[in-house]
Amino acid sequence: VGHGSLLIIGGKEDKTGEKLILRELVQMIGSGKLVVSTVASGESKEIWADYERAFRSLGCRHVWHLEVGSREDAMSERAIRILDDATAVFFTGGDQLKITSQLGDTPIYARIREIYESGGTIAGTSAGASVMCETMLVSGNGHSSHRIGDALRMAPGFGLVDGLIIDQHFAERGRIGRLVAAVSQNPRLIGLGLDENTAVLVRRQKFATVIGDGAVYVVDGRRVTSSNIALEAEERTLSVFDVKLHLLSMGDKFDLGTRCPSAGSARALEQAILD
Amino acid sequence: VGHGSLLIIGGKEDKTGEKLILRELVQMIGSGKLVVSTVASGESKEIWADYERAFRSLGCRHVWHLEVGSREDAMSERAIRILDDATAVFFTGGDQLKITSQLGDTPIYARIREIYESGGTIAGTSAGASVMCETMLVSGNGHSSHRIGDALRMAPGFGLVDGLIIDQHFAERGRIGRLVAAVSQNPRLIGLGLDENTAVLVRRQKFATVIGDGAVYVVDGRRVTSSNIALEAEERTLSVFDVKLHLLSMGDKFDLGTRCPSAGSARALEQAILD
Repeated sequence: VGHGSLLIIGGKEDKTGEKLILRELVQMIGSGKLVVSTVASGESKEIWADYERAFRSLGCRHVWHLEVGSREDAMSERAIRILDDATAVFFTGGDQLKITSQLGDTPIYARIREIYESGGTIAGTSAGASVMCETMLVSGNGHSSHRIGDALRMAPGFGLVDGLIIDQHFAERGRIGRLVAAVSQNPRLIGLGLDENTAVLVRRQKFATVIGDGAVYVVDGRRVTSSNIALEAEERTLSVFDVKLHLLSMGDKFDLGTRCPSAGSARALEQAILD
Repeated sequence: VGHGSLLIIGGKEDKTGEKLILRELVQMIGSGKLVVSTVASGESKEIWADYERAFRSLGCRHVWHLEVGSREDAMSERAIRILDDATAVFFTGGDQLKITSQLGDTPIYARIREIYESGGTIAGTSAGASVMCETMLVSGNGHSSHRIGDALRMAPGFGLVDGLIIDQHFAERGRIGRLVAAVSQNPRLIGLGLDENTAVLVRRQKFATVIGDGAVYVVDGRRVTSSNIALEAEERTLSVFDVKLHLLSMGDKFDLGTRCPSAGSARALEQAILD
Protein backbone atom coordinates (compact mmCIF):
# COMPACT_ATOMS: atom_id res chain seq x y z
CA VAL A 1 0.00 0.00 0.00
CA GLY A 2 1.00 3.57 -0.69
CA HIS A 3 3.33 5.95 0.99
CA GLY A 4 2.11 9.19 -0.49
CA SER A 5 -0.39 11.69 0.83
CA LEU A 6 -4.11 12.06 0.44
CA LEU A 7 -5.89 15.40 0.58
CA ILE A 8 -9.55 14.64 1.14
CA ILE A 9 -11.88 17.64 0.80
CA GLY A 10 -15.55 17.91 1.80
CA GLY A 11 -16.61 19.89 -1.29
CA LYS A 12 -16.90 23.60 -2.15
CA GLU A 13 -13.35 24.48 -1.17
CA ASP A 14 -12.46 28.14 -1.56
CA LYS A 15 -11.12 28.78 -5.08
CA THR A 16 -11.09 32.59 -5.14
CA GLY A 17 -10.13 33.87 -1.66
CA GLU A 18 -7.23 32.69 0.46
CA LYS A 19 -7.69 29.20 -1.02
CA LEU A 20 -6.16 27.63 2.07
CA ILE A 21 -6.77 24.02 1.06
CA LEU A 22 -5.67 24.36 -2.58
CA ARG A 23 -2.71 26.45 -1.39
CA GLU A 24 -1.59 23.61 0.86
CA LEU A 25 -1.89 21.23 -2.09
CA VAL A 26 0.25 23.49 -4.27
CA GLN A 27 2.89 23.67 -1.53
CA MET A 28 2.93 19.89 -1.27
CA ILE A 29 3.42 19.60 -5.03
CA GLY A 30 6.27 22.10 -5.15
CA SER A 31 7.81 21.98 -8.61
CA GLY A 32 5.98 18.76 -9.44
CA LYS A 33 3.24 18.17 -11.99
CA LEU A 34 -0.46 18.28 -11.09
CA VAL A 35 -3.18 16.62 -13.15
CA VAL A 36 -6.78 17.70 -12.57
CA SER A 37 -9.31 14.99 -13.40
CA THR A 38 -12.86 16.12 -14.14
CA VAL A 39 -14.07 12.59 -14.86
CA ALA A 40 -16.72 12.86 -12.11
CA SER A 41 -18.45 15.77 -13.78
CA GLY A 42 -20.56 16.44 -16.85
CA GLU A 43 -19.34 20.05 -17.07
CA SER A 44 -15.65 19.36 -17.30
CA LYS A 45 -14.69 22.50 -19.30
CA GLU A 46 -16.07 25.00 -16.79
CA ILE A 47 -14.75 23.11 -13.79
CA TRP A 48 -11.31 22.78 -15.32
CA ALA A 49 -11.26 26.51 -16.09
CA ASP A 50 -12.01 27.34 -12.45
CA TYR A 51 -9.35 25.02 -11.10
CA GLU A 52 -6.76 26.02 -13.66
CA ARG A 53 -7.25 29.66 -12.68
CA ALA A 54 -7.07 28.84 -8.95
CA PHE A 55 -3.97 26.63 -9.19
CA ARG A 56 -2.11 29.02 -11.47
CA SER A 57 -2.91 31.97 -9.19
CA LEU A 58 -1.22 29.96 -6.42
CA GLY A 59 1.92 29.60 -8.48
CA CYS A 60 1.41 26.04 -9.65
CA ARG A 61 3.24 25.91 -12.96
CA HIS A 62 2.66 22.39 -14.18
CA VAL A 63 -1.08 21.81 -14.17
CA TRP A 64 -2.84 19.65 -16.74
CA HIS A 65 -6.37 18.54 -17.46
CA LEU A 66 -7.31 14.88 -17.64
CA GLU A 67 -10.64 14.77 -19.44
CA VAL A 68 -12.30 11.40 -19.59
CA GLY A 69 -15.87 11.02 -20.82
CA SER A 70 -16.02 7.26 -21.15
CA ARG A 71 -14.17 4.08 -20.33
CA GLU A 72 -12.87 4.11 -23.88
CA ASP A 73 -11.33 7.54 -23.31
CA ALA A 74 -9.69 6.16 -20.19
CA MET A 75 -7.96 3.49 -22.26
CA SER A 76 -6.58 5.97 -24.80
CA GLU A 77 -2.89 6.64 -25.19
CA ARG A 78 -3.58 10.37 -25.05
CA ALA A 79 -5.17 10.10 -21.61
CA ILE A 80 -2.45 7.99 -20.08
CA ARG A 81 0.26 10.28 -21.48
CA ILE A 82 -1.16 13.23 -19.54
CA LEU A 83 -0.16 11.43 -16.36
CA ASP A 84 3.50 11.07 -17.44
CA ASP A 85 5.72 12.45 -14.68
CA ALA A 86 2.71 13.59 -12.66
CA THR A 87 3.34 13.83 -8.92
CA ALA A 88 -0.20 14.74 -7.91
CA VAL A 89 -3.74 14.11 -9.15
CA PHE A 90 -6.79 16.11 -8.12
CA PHE A 91 -10.31 14.70 -8.57
CA THR A 92 -13.09 17.26 -8.83
CA GLY A 93 -16.64 16.74 -7.62
CA GLY A 94 -19.55 15.22 -9.50
CA ASP A 95 -20.56 11.57 -9.37
CA GLN A 96 -18.23 9.13 -7.63
CA LEU A 97 -19.56 6.24 -9.73
CA LYS A 98 -18.38 8.00 -12.88
CA ILE A 99 -14.87 8.03 -11.45
CA THR A 100 -14.76 4.36 -10.52
CA SER A 101 -16.78 2.96 -13.42
CA GLN A 102 -14.70 4.81 -16.00
CA LEU A 103 -11.25 4.53 -14.40
CA GLY A 104 -11.47 1.30 -12.41
CA ASP A 105 -8.91 -1.25 -13.58
CA THR A 106 -7.66 0.93 -16.45
CA PRO A 107 -4.03 1.92 -17.03
CA ILE A 108 -4.97 5.34 -15.65
CA TYR A 109 -5.99 3.81 -12.35
CA ALA A 110 -2.75 1.80 -12.25
CA ARG A 111 -0.82 5.00 -12.87
CA ILE A 112 -2.67 6.83 -10.10
CA ARG A 113 -1.74 4.10 -7.64
CA GLU A 114 1.84 4.27 -8.84
CA ILE A 115 1.95 8.02 -8.25
CA TYR A 116 0.54 7.52 -4.79
CA GLU A 117 2.82 4.63 -3.88
CA SER A 118 5.90 6.47 -5.00
CA GLY A 119 5.18 9.33 -2.61
CA GLY A 120 2.88 11.53 -4.66
CA THR A 121 -0.35 13.18 -3.62
CA ILE A 122 -3.88 12.22 -4.52
CA ALA A 123 -6.44 14.90 -3.74
CA GLY A 124 -10.17 14.94 -4.24
CA THR A 125 -13.18 17.03 -3.36
CA SER A 126 -16.77 15.89 -2.81
CA ALA A 127 -17.18 12.84 -5.10
CA GLY A 128 -13.42 12.94 -5.48
CA ALA A 129 -13.13 12.57 -1.70
CA SER A 130 -15.53 9.65 -1.36
CA VAL A 131 -13.66 7.69 -3.98
CA MET A 132 -10.47 7.40 -1.90
CA CYS A 133 -11.83 4.57 0.30
CA GLU A 134 -12.09 0.86 -0.28
CA THR A 135 -15.84 1.04 0.10
CA MET A 136 -17.32 4.37 -0.87
CA LEU A 137 -20.63 5.88 0.10
CA VAL A 138 -22.54 6.65 -3.10
CA SER A 139 -25.87 7.90 -1.84
CA GLY A 140 -28.24 7.87 1.10
CA ASN A 141 -30.69 10.25 2.71
CA GLY A 142 -29.60 13.44 4.38
CA HIS A 143 -31.76 15.34 6.86
CA SER A 144 -33.23 12.17 8.28
CA SER A 145 -32.30 9.41 10.64
CA HIS A 146 -31.58 6.07 9.04
CA ARG A 147 -34.22 3.38 8.69
CA ILE A 148 -33.12 -0.23 8.57
CA GLY A 149 -34.49 -0.64 5.05
CA ASP A 150 -33.19 2.66 3.67
CA ALA A 151 -30.99 2.43 0.63
CA LEU A 152 -27.47 3.32 1.69
CA ARG A 153 -25.70 2.81 -1.59
CA MET A 154 -22.05 1.84 -1.44
CA ALA A 155 -19.63 0.73 -4.11
CA PRO A 156 -16.01 -0.31 -4.31
CA GLY A 157 -13.76 2.76 -4.38
CA PHE A 158 -10.10 3.37 -5.23
CA GLY A 159 -8.92 1.74 -2.02
CA LEU A 160 -6.13 4.27 -1.44
CA VAL A 161 -6.77 4.31 2.28
CA ASP A 162 -7.90 1.42 4.40
CA GLY A 163 -10.33 1.46 7.29
CA LEU A 164 -12.13 4.69 6.42
CA ILE A 165 -15.49 5.61 5.01
CA ILE A 166 -15.84 9.20 3.90
CA ASP A 167 -18.83 11.49 3.64
CA GLN A 168 -18.79 15.09 2.45
CA HIS A 169 -20.95 18.27 2.52
CA PHE A 170 -21.46 16.91 6.00
CA ALA A 171 -23.06 19.50 8.30
CA GLU A 172 -24.52 21.32 5.30
CA ARG A 173 -26.55 18.32 4.18
CA GLY A 174 -27.36 16.85 7.61
CA ARG A 175 -25.52 13.57 7.07
CA ILE A 176 -24.77 12.37 10.60
CA GLY A 177 -27.57 9.79 10.37
CA ARG A 178 -26.26 8.15 7.23
CA LEU A 179 -22.63 8.10 8.37
CA VAL A 180 -23.53 6.51 11.69
CA ALA A 181 -25.56 3.96 9.70
CA ALA A 182 -22.60 3.21 7.43
CA VAL A 183 -20.30 2.71 10.41
CA SER A 184 -22.91 0.56 12.16
CA GLN A 185 -22.85 -1.84 9.23
CA ASN A 186 -19.23 -2.57 9.98
CA PRO A 187 -17.52 -0.73 12.86
CA ARG A 188 -14.14 -1.77 11.47
CA LEU A 189 -14.44 1.40 9.39
CA ILE A 190 -13.98 4.83 10.89
CA GLY A 191 -16.50 7.30 9.52
CA LEU A 192 -15.11 10.66 8.46
CA GLY A 193 -17.70 13.35 7.75
CA LEU A 194 -16.20 16.45 6.17
CA ASP A 195 -17.88 19.84 6.03
CA GLU A 196 -17.58 21.98 2.94
CA ASN A 197 -14.33 23.94 2.52
CA THR A 198 -12.73 21.54 4.98
CA ALA A 199 -10.15 18.85 4.32
CA VAL A 200 -8.08 16.18 5.97
CA LEU A 201 -4.54 15.58 4.89
CA VAL A 202 -3.67 11.92 5.41
CA ARG A 203 0.01 11.03 5.51
CA ARG A 204 1.37 7.50 5.45
CA GLN A 205 -2.15 6.04 5.71
CA LYS A 206 -2.17 7.04 9.33
CA PHE A 207 -1.97 10.67 10.37
CA ALA A 208 -4.84 12.94 9.45
CA THR A 209 -4.67 16.71 9.90
CA VAL A 210 -7.64 19.02 9.46
CA ILE A 211 -7.30 22.04 7.19
CA GLY A 212 -10.04 24.53 6.45
CA ASP A 213 -13.10 26.27 7.64
CA GLY A 214 -15.52 23.73 9.05
CA ALA A 215 -15.41 20.59 11.12
CA VAL A 216 -14.52 16.98 10.48
CA TYR A 217 -16.77 14.53 12.32
CA VAL A 218 -15.06 11.29 13.28
CA VAL A 219 -17.53 8.48 13.96
CA ASP A 220 -15.85 5.61 15.80
CA GLY A 221 -18.04 2.53 16.26
CA ARG A 222 -15.46 0.28 17.87
CA ARG A 223 -17.13 0.41 21.29
CA VAL A 224 -20.71 0.12 20.04
CA THR A 225 -22.58 -2.07 22.51
CA SER A 226 -25.89 -2.57 20.76
CA SER A 227 -27.45 -1.90 17.39
CA ASN A 228 -30.63 -3.06 15.69
CA ILE A 229 -29.21 -2.71 12.17
CA ALA A 230 -29.27 -6.42 11.37
CA LEU A 231 -32.26 -7.25 13.54
CA GLU A 232 -35.19 -4.96 12.98
CA ALA A 233 -37.90 -4.68 10.33
CA GLU A 234 -37.14 -2.45 7.34
CA GLU A 235 -39.43 0.39 8.40
CA ARG A 236 -37.77 0.75 11.80
CA THR A 237 -35.31 3.46 12.67
CA LEU A 238 -31.69 2.66 13.44
CA SER A 239 -30.67 2.34 17.08
CA VAL A 240 -27.02 2.29 17.96
CA PHE A 241 -25.48 2.80 21.39
CA ASP A 242 -22.05 4.01 22.47
CA VAL A 243 -20.74 5.59 19.33
CA LYS A 244 -17.69 7.72 19.93
CA LEU A 245 -17.82 11.07 18.17
CA HIS A 246 -15.04 13.62 17.73
CA LEU A 247 -15.48 17.03 16.14
CA LEU A 248 -12.14 18.16 14.77
CA SER A 249 -11.28 21.54 13.35
CA MET A 250 -8.32 23.29 11.69
CA GLY A 251 -5.01 22.11 13.11
CA ASP A 252 -6.39 19.10 14.96
CA LYS A 253 -4.96 15.69 14.17
CA PHE A 254 -6.35 12.17 14.23
CA ASP A 255 -4.32 8.98 14.34
CA LEU A 256 -6.16 6.45 12.18
CA GLY A 257 -4.20 3.63 13.80
CA THR A 258 -4.88 4.30 17.45
CA ARG A 259 -8.13 6.19 16.70
CA CYS A 260 -6.99 9.04 18.95
CA PRO A 261 -7.50 12.75 18.24
CA SER A 262 -5.09 15.42 19.35
CA ALA A 263 -5.61 19.16 19.47
CA GLY A 264 -3.59 21.49 17.28
CA SER A 265 -3.36 25.20 16.74
CA ALA A 266 -5.54 26.55 13.94
CA ARG A 267 -3.55 29.76 13.82
CA ALA A 268 -0.18 28.05 13.58
CA LEU A 269 -1.31 25.83 10.72
CA GLU A 270 -2.94 28.73 8.92
CA GLN A 271 0.22 30.82 9.18
CA ALA A 272 2.37 27.93 8.03
CA ILE A 273 0.22 27.61 4.90
CA LEU A 274 -0.02 31.35 4.22
CA ASP A 275 3.67 32.11 4.76
CA VAL B 1 -39.01 18.28 42.22
CA GLY B 2 -41.90 16.67 40.46
CA HIS B 3 -43.11 13.13 40.27
CA GLY B 4 -45.22 13.29 37.17
CA SER B 5 -44.38 12.47 33.58
CA LEU B 6 -43.04 14.52 30.72
CA LEU B 7 -43.81 13.78 27.10
CA ILE B 8 -41.24 15.65 25.05
CA ILE B 9 -41.92 15.68 21.29
CA GLY B 10 -39.56 16.73 18.47
CA GLY B 11 -42.26 18.56 16.46
CA LYS B 12 -44.64 17.59 13.64
CA GLU B 13 -46.13 14.63 15.46
CA ASP B 14 -48.75 12.72 13.51
CA LYS B 15 -52.22 14.24 14.13
CA THR B 16 -54.27 12.47 11.47
CA GLY B 17 -52.96 8.89 11.08
CA GLU B 18 -52.28 6.41 13.88
CA LYS B 19 -51.25 9.35 16.07
CA LEU B 20 -49.02 7.10 18.14
CA ILE B 21 -47.54 9.83 20.32
CA LEU B 22 -50.79 11.69 21.01
CA ARG B 23 -52.49 8.32 21.54
CA GLU B 24 -49.98 7.48 24.25
CA LEU B 25 -50.67 10.84 25.87
CA VAL B 26 -54.42 10.22 25.84
CA GLN B 27 -53.88 6.82 27.47
CA MET B 28 -51.74 8.40 30.16
CA ILE B 29 -54.47 10.96 30.86
CA GLY B 30 -57.26 8.38 31.09
CA SER B 31 -60.36 10.12 32.39
CA GLY B 32 -58.36 13.17 33.45
CA LYS B 33 -58.52 16.69 32.04
CA LEU B 34 -56.14 17.92 29.34
CA VAL B 35 -55.39 21.58 28.71
CA VAL B 36 -53.79 22.55 25.39
CA SER B 37 -51.74 25.72 25.58
CA THR B 38 -51.11 27.56 22.31
CA VAL B 39 -49.18 30.36 24.01
CA ALA B 40 -46.12 29.65 21.85
CA SER B 41 -47.97 30.38 18.63
CA GLY B 42 -49.43 33.34 16.79
CA GLU B 43 -52.07 31.16 15.10
CA SER B 44 -53.68 29.75 18.17
CA LYS B 45 -57.16 29.20 16.70
CA GLU B 46 -56.05 26.94 13.85
CA ILE B 47 -53.61 25.01 16.01
CA TRP B 48 -56.17 24.46 18.71
CA ALA B 49 -58.69 23.24 16.11
CA ASP B 50 -56.19 20.63 14.85
CA TYR B 51 -55.32 19.39 18.32
CA GLU B 52 -58.92 19.39 19.53
CA ARG B 53 -59.88 17.21 16.55
CA ALA B 54 -56.94 14.86 17.11
CA PHE B 55 -57.44 14.46 20.85
CA ARG B 56 -61.22 14.00 20.56
CA SER B 57 -60.75 11.40 17.82
CA LEU B 58 -58.59 9.49 20.30
CA GLY B 59 -61.37 9.48 22.86
CA CYS B 60 -60.09 12.28 25.07
CA ARG B 61 -63.23 13.75 26.60
CA HIS B 62 -61.96 16.58 28.75
CA VAL B 63 -59.83 18.77 26.54
CA TRP B 64 -59.65 22.55 26.95
CA HIS B 65 -57.88 25.41 25.28
CA LEU B 66 -55.61 27.75 27.23
CA GLU B 67 -55.20 30.82 25.06
CA VAL B 68 -52.73 33.37 26.30
CA GLY B 69 -51.67 36.28 24.11
CA SER B 70 -49.86 38.36 26.68
CA ARG B 71 -48.54 38.32 30.21
CA GLU B 72 -51.67 40.17 31.26
CA ASP B 73 -53.82 37.34 29.89
CA ALA B 74 -51.70 34.91 31.89
CA MET B 75 -52.60 36.76 35.08
CA SER B 76 -56.35 36.67 34.40
CA GLU B 77 -58.77 34.73 36.53
CA ARG B 78 -60.31 33.21 33.38
CA ALA B 79 -56.98 31.71 32.30
CA ILE B 80 -56.11 30.21 35.64
CA ARG B 81 -59.61 28.70 35.98
CA ILE B 82 -59.10 26.66 32.80
CA LEU B 83 -56.41 24.74 34.66
CA ASP B 84 -58.74 23.78 37.52
CA ASP B 85 -58.63 20.02 37.98
CA ALA B 86 -56.34 19.60 34.97
CA THR B 87 -54.15 16.49 35.09
CA ALA B 88 -52.20 17.18 31.92
CA VAL B 89 -51.01 20.20 29.93
CA PHE B 90 -49.85 20.11 26.32
CA PHE B 91 -47.72 22.92 24.88
CA THR B 92 -47.87 23.36 21.12
CA GLY B 93 -45.02 24.59 18.95
CA GLY B 94 -44.13 28.16 18.09
CA ASP B 95 -41.64 30.30 19.95
CA GLN B 96 -40.29 29.01 23.25
CA LEU B 97 -39.61 32.56 24.47
CA LYS B 98 -43.31 33.35 24.17
CA ILE B 99 -44.02 30.50 26.55
CA THR B 100 -41.51 31.50 29.21
CA SER B 101 -41.83 35.28 28.90
CA GLN B 102 -45.62 35.17 29.15
CA LEU B 103 -46.04 32.38 31.71
CA GLY B 104 -42.85 32.60 33.78
CA ASP B 105 -43.59 33.31 37.45
CA THR B 106 -47.36 33.66 36.87
CA PRO B 107 -50.05 31.73 38.74
CA ILE B 108 -50.40 29.62 35.58
CA TYR B 109 -46.78 28.51 35.81
CA ALA B 110 -47.25 27.71 39.51
CA ARG B 111 -50.30 25.64 38.65
CA ILE B 112 -48.40 23.75 35.91
CA ARG B 113 -45.72 22.81 38.40
CA GLU B 114 -48.39 21.72 40.84
CA ILE B 115 -49.99 19.47 38.23
CA TYR B 116 -46.61 17.97 37.46
CA GLU B 117 -45.57 17.51 41.06
CA SER B 118 -48.83 15.85 41.97
CA GLY B 119 -48.28 13.16 39.33
CA GLY B 120 -49.76 14.77 36.22
CA THR B 121 -48.30 14.93 32.74
CA ILE B 122 -46.72 17.87 30.99
CA ALA B 123 -46.32 17.38 27.25
CA GLY B 124 -44.87 19.65 24.62
CA THR B 125 -43.88 19.60 20.99
CA SER B 126 -41.14 21.63 19.26
CA ALA B 127 -40.96 24.90 21.24
CA GLY B 128 -43.12 23.16 23.83
CA ALA B 129 -40.42 20.50 24.13
CA SER B 130 -37.48 22.88 24.52
CA VAL B 131 -39.21 24.71 27.33
CA MET B 132 -39.15 21.68 29.69
CA CYS B 133 -35.48 22.16 30.65
CA GLU B 134 -33.81 24.45 33.14
CA THR B 135 -31.81 26.06 30.35
CA MET B 136 -33.52 25.95 27.00
CA LEU B 137 -32.01 26.25 23.57
CA VAL B 138 -33.72 29.16 21.80
CA SER B 139 -31.86 29.42 18.52
CA GLY B 140 -28.63 28.59 16.77
CA ASN B 141 -27.54 27.60 13.29
CA GLY B 142 -28.56 24.35 11.71
CA HIS B 143 -26.75 22.80 8.75
CA SER B 144 -23.39 24.03 9.92
CA SER B 145 -20.74 23.17 12.43
CA HIS B 146 -20.47 25.51 15.38
CA ARG B 147 -18.03 28.40 15.47
CA ILE B 148 -16.77 29.61 18.81
CA GLY B 149 -18.38 33.02 18.31
CA ASP B 150 -21.70 31.77 16.92
CA ALA B 151 -24.78 32.89 18.75
CA LEU B 152 -26.22 29.90 20.54
CA ARG B 153 -29.13 31.54 22.27
CA MET B 154 -30.28 30.01 25.50
CA ALA B 155 -32.76 31.16 28.10
CA PRO B 156 -34.12 29.92 31.40
CA GLY B 157 -36.87 27.36 30.79
CA PHE B 158 -39.57 25.77 32.95
CA GLY B 159 -37.04 23.64 34.81
CA LEU B 160 -39.30 20.58 34.93
CA VAL B 161 -36.41 18.24 34.30
CA ASP B 162 -32.87 18.66 35.47
CA GLY B 163 -29.68 17.85 33.62
CA LEU B 164 -31.10 17.89 30.08
CA ILE B 165 -30.92 20.21 27.13
CA ILE B 166 -33.42 19.50 24.38
CA ASP B 167 -33.32 20.17 20.68
CA GLN B 168 -36.06 19.30 18.19
CA HIS B 169 -36.60 18.87 14.42
CA PHE B 170 -33.21 17.31 14.86
CA ALA B 171 -32.17 15.28 11.81
CA GLU B 172 -34.51 17.32 9.63
CA ARG B 173 -32.73 20.60 10.39
CA GLY B 174 -29.18 19.27 10.71
CA ARG B 175 -28.74 20.22 14.37
CA ILE B 176 -26.00 17.89 15.61
CA GLY B 177 -23.44 20.71 15.48
CA ARG B 178 -25.43 23.05 17.70
CA LEU B 179 -26.39 20.36 20.23
CA VAL B 180 -22.78 19.22 20.60
CA ALA B 181 -21.86 22.89 21.07
CA ALA B 182 -24.51 23.32 23.77
CA VAL B 183 -23.29 20.23 25.61
CA SER B 184 -19.66 21.36 25.25
CA GLN B 185 -20.51 24.54 27.11
CA ASN B 186 -21.35 22.46 30.14
CA PRO B 187 -21.14 18.67 29.92
CA ARG B 188 -23.21 18.38 33.08
CA LEU B 189 -26.18 18.53 30.70
CA ILE B 190 -27.14 15.60 28.53
CA GLY B 191 -28.15 16.73 25.04
CA LEU B 192 -31.31 15.18 23.67
CA GLY B 193 -31.97 15.77 19.96
CA LEU B 194 -35.42 14.65 18.88
CA ASP B 195 -36.45 14.03 15.29
CA GLU B 196 -39.89 15.08 14.10
CA ASN B 197 -42.79 12.76 15.01
CA THR B 198 -40.59 11.31 17.75
CA ALA B 199 -40.91 11.70 21.50
CA VAL B 200 -39.38 10.71 24.78
CA LEU B 201 -41.54 9.91 27.73
CA VAL B 202 -39.68 10.81 30.93
CA ARG B 203 -40.97 9.25 34.15
CA ARG B 204 -39.83 10.25 37.61
CA GLN B 205 -37.16 12.58 36.15
CA LYS B 206 -35.13 9.55 35.28
CA PHE B 207 -36.40 6.98 32.80
CA ALA B 208 -36.82 8.07 29.22
CA THR B 209 -38.55 5.88 26.63
CA VAL B 210 -38.61 6.65 22.92
CA ILE B 211 -41.95 6.67 21.09
CA GLY B 212 -42.44 7.45 17.43
CA ASP B 213 -41.02 7.38 14.01
CA GLY B 214 -37.52 8.81 14.05
CA ALA B 215 -34.49 8.78 16.27
CA VAL B 216 -33.49 10.46 19.50
CA TYR B 217 -29.83 11.48 19.59
CA VAL B 218 -28.29 11.43 23.05
CA VAL B 219 -25.15 13.56 23.30
CA ASP B 220 -23.19 12.72 26.45
CA GLY B 221 -20.21 14.96 27.07
CA ARG B 222 -19.13 13.55 30.42
CA ARG B 223 -16.01 11.93 29.02
CA VAL B 224 -14.98 14.81 26.77
CA THR B 225 -11.20 15.04 26.91
CA SER B 226 -10.56 18.25 25.02
CA SER B 227 -12.51 21.15 23.60
CA ASN B 228 -11.54 24.56 22.29
CA ILE B 229 -14.88 26.18 23.16
CA ALA B 230 -13.50 28.52 25.80
CA LEU B 231 -10.07 28.93 24.22
CA GLU B 232 -10.23 29.78 20.55
CA ALA B 233 -10.92 32.93 18.58
CA GLU B 234 -14.53 33.63 17.63
CA GLU B 235 -14.16 32.73 13.97
CA ARG B 236 -12.78 29.27 14.72
CA THR B 237 -14.78 26.09 14.48
CA LEU B 238 -15.58 24.04 17.56
CA SER B 239 -13.35 21.06 18.34
CA VAL B 240 -14.50 18.55 20.90
CA PHE B 241 -13.10 15.07 21.47
CA ASP B 242 -14.64 11.94 22.96
CA VAL B 243 -18.31 12.76 22.88
CA LYS B 244 -20.50 9.73 23.48
CA LEU B 245 -23.41 9.48 21.07
CA HIS B 246 -26.40 7.15 21.22
CA LEU B 247 -29.07 6.90 18.56
CA LEU B 248 -32.25 5.61 20.15
CA SER B 249 -35.43 4.58 18.41
CA MET B 250 -38.95 3.39 19.29
CA GLY B 251 -38.95 1.24 22.42
CA ASP B 252 -35.41 2.06 23.51
CA LYS B 253 -34.89 3.48 26.96
CA PHE B 254 -32.35 5.80 28.50
CA ASP B 255 -31.59 6.18 32.18
CA LEU B 256 -30.90 9.86 32.79
CA GLY B 257 -29.24 9.02 36.11
CA THR B 258 -26.70 6.44 34.99
CA ARG B 259 -26.62 7.80 31.40
CA CYS B 260 -27.09 4.24 30.08
CA PRO B 261 -29.26 3.28 27.11
CA SER B 262 -31.07 -0.03 26.85
CA ALA B 263 -32.67 -1.62 23.83
CA GLY B 264 -36.41 -2.20 23.67
CA SER B 265 -38.84 -3.67 21.20
CA ALA B 266 -40.43 -1.19 18.84
CA ARG B 267 -43.15 -3.64 17.94
CA ALA B 268 -44.08 -4.42 21.54
CA LEU B 269 -44.38 -0.75 22.44
CA GLU B 270 -46.37 0.02 19.31
CA GLN B 271 -48.81 -2.78 20.04
CA ALA B 272 -49.14 -1.72 23.65
CA ILE B 273 -50.12 1.77 22.51
CA LEU B 274 -52.45 0.63 19.72
CA ASP B 275 -54.26 -2.02 21.74
